[in-house]
Amino acid sequence: MNPTIIQKLSEIFENFPGVGPKTAERFAFFLLKQSPEELQKMINDLEEIKGKVKRCSNCFNISFSDPCEICADTRRNPTLICVVASSQDILPLEKTSEFKGLYHILQGTINAPDGFTPDKLNIRPLIGRVKKFVDQNNNVEVILAFNPTIEGETTSLFLTKLLKQIPVKVTRLARGLPQGSDLQYADEITLSNALKDRREI
Amino acid sequence: MNPTIIQKLSEIFENFPGVGPKTAERFAFFLLKQSPEELQKMINDLEEIKGKVKRCSNCFNISFSDPCEICADTRRNPTLICVVASSQDILPLEKTSEFKGLYHILQGTINAPDGFTPDKLNIRPLIGRVKKFVDQNNNVEVILAFNPTIEGETTSLFLTKLLKQIPVKVTRLARGLPQGSDLQYADEITLSNALKDRREI
Repeated sequence: MNPTIIQKLSEIFENFPGVGPKTAERFAFFLLKQSPEELQKMINDLEEIKGKVKRCSNCFNISFSDPCEICADTRRNPTLICVVASSQDILPLEKTSEFKGLYHILQGTINAPDGFTPDKLNIRPLIGRVKKFVDQNNNVEVILAFNPTIEGETTSLFLTKLLKQIPVKVTRLARGLPQGSDLQYADEITLSNALKDRREI
Repeated sequence: MNPTIIQKLSEIFENFPGVGPKTAERFAFFLLKQSPEELQKMINDLEEIKGKVKRCSNCFNISFSDPCEICADTRRNPTLICVVASSQDILPLEKTSEFKGLYHILQGTINAPDGFTPDKLNIRPLIGRVKKFVDQNNNVEVILAFNPTIEGETTSLFLTKLLKQIPVKVTRLARGLPQGSDLQYADEITLSNALKDRREI
């Protein structure tokens, strides 16, 4: 096989998250082994999304429509707003079927050294949305659902300070032992969080 | 974003080598964040290979032409045939610029429990080709270039037995210390191979 073809096909994948040159090359060979029908299926899927993806002007979720499907769904609870770092975080939350409120996507977390200062994130629109919800409903709750990392904590602290100026309940996801884990192997921070967040049964 | 779209885009990648459902999902989101121009570029690349990839009827390399570019290249040495397990193995060998002979792709290695019995591999065509080369040239050499694994060794042994019936020189890739490695950390088999294959300097 012509190395330039492998090169060209590899380049498709080299920008994919977590894909290095070796993996890109494996993917290129995988493509070369696909039947015309399978390649056509991929082409159709790519054509389907091309030029159609936008950001919801309410919550900044990636979507084919504006407002997005979640914002447009009147069955969802507008007194519950879950703030996440990226659109990807919505998927696992939706899979729990536990959350029936709305989302707000910050498009990042605060990380000044990497240039993610608060003004780069969708924080101002969040405050605007929350104020509007508070005007329309009682007992609005904002759930901060960031990764338990330095950046996530910083963002949580920053948002909490801003949100406390509005009559709104601010919560965050619980910290504790993950399902199926072993107490013996839990790290100190996880265990200390599990103690702090302990619940009466 | 509609979970069915994520699902559909993830499915593209779920069959890719070494890609699990989580990675496929990350790739799906990556696609959703691409500009129409970038998606069009991918579509063009896929269109370019669709229905054009065949197997060379000489060496079984994947190629756009039959015979493949390597078999058709008259500058290559027809007294040197390198036998590899898959088309992918050609790329690193070509990158060395050390090898100017022809290839033969077995499309697998002998692995009876997984159904890769010798009759499933391109062994009969290899013997035919080698015989033809021997008829046309003196001093034909067959290099067996398989991974240093059980399957690779088994295939090497099997082929050596067959090839020894033809007046042909059979060699295999050298075993020894990889470039940049540390003797202290070399495993016993590697070091024992490096001793066995030692060369006069």
